[in-house]
Amino acid sequence: MEFSAQQIADFLKGDITGNPHVNVSDFAKIEEAVPGTLTFLSNMKYAPYLYSTKASIVLINKTFELTEPVSPTLIRVDDAYASLAMLLSLIEKAKQRKTGREKPVYVAESASVPENCYVGVFTCISENTSIGENTQIYPQVFIGENVTIGERCIIYPGVKIYAETRIGKNCILHAGAVIGSDGFGFAPEGEAYSKIPQIGIVEIEDNVEIGANATIDRATMGKTLIRKGVKLDNLVHIAHNVEVGENTVMAAQTGIAGSTKIGASCMFGGQVGISGHIEVGDNVKLGAQSGVHNSVKHNSTMMGTPALDARNFAKSSAVFKQLPELRWDIIQLIKNSDNNTNDNK
Amino acid sequence: MEFSAQQIADFLKGDITGNPHVNVSDFAKIEEAVPGTLTFLSNMKYAPYLYSTKASIVLINKTFELTEPVSPTLIRVDDAYASLAMLLSLIEKAKQRKTGREKPVYVAESASVPENCYVGVFTCISENTSIGENTQIYPQVFIGENVTIGERCIIYPGVKIYAETRIGKNCILHAGAVIGSDGFGFAPEGEAYSKIPQIGIVEIEDNVEIGANATIDRATMGKTLIRKGVKLDNLVHIAHNVEVGENTVMAAQTGIAGSTKIGASCMFGGQVGISGHIEVGDNVKLGAQSGVHNSVKHNSTMMGTPALDARNFAKSSAVFKQLPELRWDIIQLIKNSDNNTNDNK
Amino acid sequence: MEFSAQQIADFLKGDITGNPHVNVSDFAKIEEAVPGTLTFLSNMKYAPYLYSTKASIVLINKTFELTEPVSPTLIRVDDAYASLAMLLSLIEKAKQRKTGREKPVYVAESASVPENCYVGVFTCISENTSIGENTQIYPQVFIGENVTIGERCIIYPGVKIYAETRIGKNCILHAGAVIGSDGFGFAPEGEAYSKIPQIGIVEIEDNVEIGANATIDRATMGKTLIRKGVKLDNLVHIAHNVEVGENTVMAAQTGIAGSTKIGASCMFGGQVGISGHIEVGDNVKLGAQSGVHNSVKHNSTMMGTPALDARNFAKSSAVFKQLPELRWDIIQLIKNSDNNTNDNK
Repeated sequence: MEFSAQQIADFLKGDITGNPHVNVSDFAKIEEAVPGTLTFLSNMKYAPYLYSTKASIVLINKTFELTEPVSPTLIRVDDAYASLAMLLSLIEKAKQRKTGREKPVYVAESASVPENCYVGVFTCISENTSIGENTQIYPQVFIGENVTIGERCIIYPGVKIYAETRIGKNCILHAGAVIGSDGFGFAPEGEAYSKIPQIGIVEIEDNVEIGANATIDRATMGKTLIRKGVKLDNLVHIAHNVEVGENTVMAAQTGIAGSTKIGASCMFGGQVGISGHIEVGDNVKLGAQSGVHNSVKHNSTMMGTPALDARNFAKSSAVFKQLPELRWDIIQLIKNSDNNTNDNK
Repeated sequence: MEFSAQQIADFLKGDITGNPHVNVSDFAKIEEAVPGTLTFLSNMKYAPYLYSTKASIVLINKTFELTEPVSPTLIRVDDAYASLAMLLSLIEKAKQRKTGREKPVYVAESASVPENCYVGVFTCISENTSIGENTQIYPQVFIGENVTIGERCIIYPGVKIYAETRIGKNCILHAGAVIGSDGFGFAPEGEAYSKIPQIGIVEIEDNVEIGANATIDRATMGKTLIRKGVKLDNLVHIAHNVEVGENTVMAAQTGIAGSTKIGASCMFGGQVGISGHIEVGDNVKLGAQSGVHNSVKHNSTMMGTPALDARNFAKSSAVFKQLPELRWDIIQLIKNSDNNTNDNK
Repeated sequence: MEFSAQQIADFLKGDITGNPHVNVSDFAKIEEAVPGTLTFLSNMKYAPYLYSTKASIVLINKTFELTEPVSPTLIRVDDAYASLAMLLSLIEKAKQRKTGREKPVYVAESASVPENCYVGVFTCISENTSIGENTQIYPQVFIGENVTIGERCIIYPGVKIYAETRIGKNCILHAGAVIGSDGFGFAPEGEAYSKIPQIGIVEIEDNVEIGANATIDRATMGKTLIRKGVKLDNLVHIAHNVEVGENTVMAAQTGIAGSTKIGASCMFGGQVGISGHIEVGDNVKLGAQSGVHNSVKHNSTMMGTPALDARNFAKSSAVFKQLPELRWDIIQLIKNSDNNTNDNK
């Protein structure tokens, strides 16, 4: 399917600079684009490619100022990345959604699965479970008993959802994600441990996306709660009784220990670790690999293990590099000081 | 089902303070409890909630001293957490255990699977494999050839157990765990690598629990050994030829590199990393995100990367924060020292 | 099956010291070996075991010099580890390869699956997908639409391969690996995020091995590229649009953020984290748990977070341990300096 720059600009309510009649039929990254493709410039690290890209159309922010002439047609919009997202979403929506039940599947008689749902082959939907309208469940998914899943969710292959889990609407669970496994709770019993049965649940609100092979444990009692709009990347671990606030985003391999409460609109880099039984405020930003041991105030930006204010971490890290020289300076100072003391005697 | 404080106290051999006739029908966390629920106080961080909780019954340690009057009935026991575990276990045991074979499943003719086992739909049990009495195998599990699994295990959905693996009794494997995948062994061959076939096995002793999406690699030769009572949390990685001692506990996302031997009764926080070919003694405690490069003595408590004695790490970390100021002090001292030297001339 | 030292030495073109007629029927680690087994000495940490091992045959490097007499027959070769790999590979090849289709499986009519492939039970191969000759696909694997997989691959149980993925020949994917899940891309939309559809693909070249429960995300546009000979350990995460160069090796739980380009022949320890949108050169070595925030030159060896040259990191870490003492020294120097200043007045 081909679209002209004019058609795209009209759709995005953008302004054209250059030839409005040029057509594109695919997307490409700015540094790899070929003629006939549309690309975008959002991360300014890639700005130099604007002047050499072979793309036919570039989406670009209205505020961007050219420093040289460019050959592609530009479509200027308020936010190039958001506009790209709109175009890509159009494409996604044009794809035919799967429906119907492949065979064999296992759907318990007491389960409620609307006709317009897709149920992939070798999937198991257990007793008393209820699936919302237009939800797509790929092959080899396991859904335990008494689970509820809302409308228009996508459950990718091999997702495992334990009994009693509640999932809202418009959620996406990627392949291999495990929801509702037992929390890690044991009581010492002599040298060994006895298991604390985990009788709570996991509740996931609307518009949540959970990455491949991520794990979210059920609560000991009560619930582990993932609030609406949360996005968790691959291999993230959420322990029992954790609560994650609205629209918080965690990059891959981050782990949150038990009973910790994370605020809304936080952004965590990859491989962050957060201790149990603490509170992290709203709008907290944590650099990759940070280790947070204590509660964190709203609007903090932190980094390191144990995590410090990010600017302080950067400053201390810069000095960390110089430690061998500083140690040497101190040794010299002590020597001089001893000499001085002797001199002064 | 309802129980009175008296019934519960009798079962736990605890002492009642307050109304012995109050009834509960559910559990709750102390800060979220509603009337009609039982809660517990074990972690002293939550002690302030004791005076405001709406729970009808609170399990509490005999040694705990009230600082204000409380409204719930208290049941005083030696260890509130262990008593809670006992109650939760009662509930668990009351749940009906699944039995029988769902359809379709694949069970090789040469496999031995007792009648009282549960075999969930779409599960595959391969040739010459032997399953113990009363073991429950959920849907979509893969068990390779020549595997032995003991009595009363629970294998959750989607667990993958490679050929030759041996698993003891009373083990719990959570969804998506992979046992017996090839160790990561390659020999350089020019610029590329040739694979070292991994002909060893994984052996897991009794009473082991393994978290969701955790991975335990088979040995190159001999075995990767998880001793009895070990508890591994979600997304833990155990490399080839590792040995983990009895009753050792590792929190989520911890990784142990090849051929390392971990002692008994260790406790590792989340995201700990341990190098290959070293020995970690018994009763070693490692803080979250620690990186251990060298062998560790019995009874050590360590933290940081590279790991230090935990108290020393805390002290050094405290100074790390002050490094920019200390650097400035040193610069000033050098300047003064130069001046002094000049003065003294 | 038994082999004599002479037969093995002939096969490996090695030199025998000791009895050439001794027979072995199994492999063992040097410290655990029993009579009738063959072992090897490659990592010099294990050299002391050479003089006490009960193995009947030891493979050893030609350059190794004995310091005491030994009882096993020695077979001296150029590279003991590579020779071991050759022997283990022989054993592997002697194992009968599985073929045929178990039942039930789901293979779309439009899929191309040669007769000599193995397709395990409960596996799903979707529309227009093409599998190469002699490839083995274990049970419960999901392969989406329009996927191509080359010859002689092994896809272990429960692997999930999303639509459009391309995989070369001689690749091994371990259980639970997820290939082609959506990249983690969202555009802010008020307080919430809107998903950036990920319309790119994953391409994996020849001779790649991917560990259990590892995840490789598809590109936003274009492709995420794993070049030939790459070896990724368990639970590794590769984000969208990453490129990993030939023969690069990453240990378990390492994560690479989006759009980063990793060079050829790199070696990363476990739990390494690399930021997005940077370039890591060829032959770069990164110590376990390193955190790399900026582009790295060819042939660098780095460690720490943020990563430093490994020797500098070691030196700075040594001083980190002494920080409390150094801080005390500085305080004393300041006190002395003040006194001196007063003295000099």
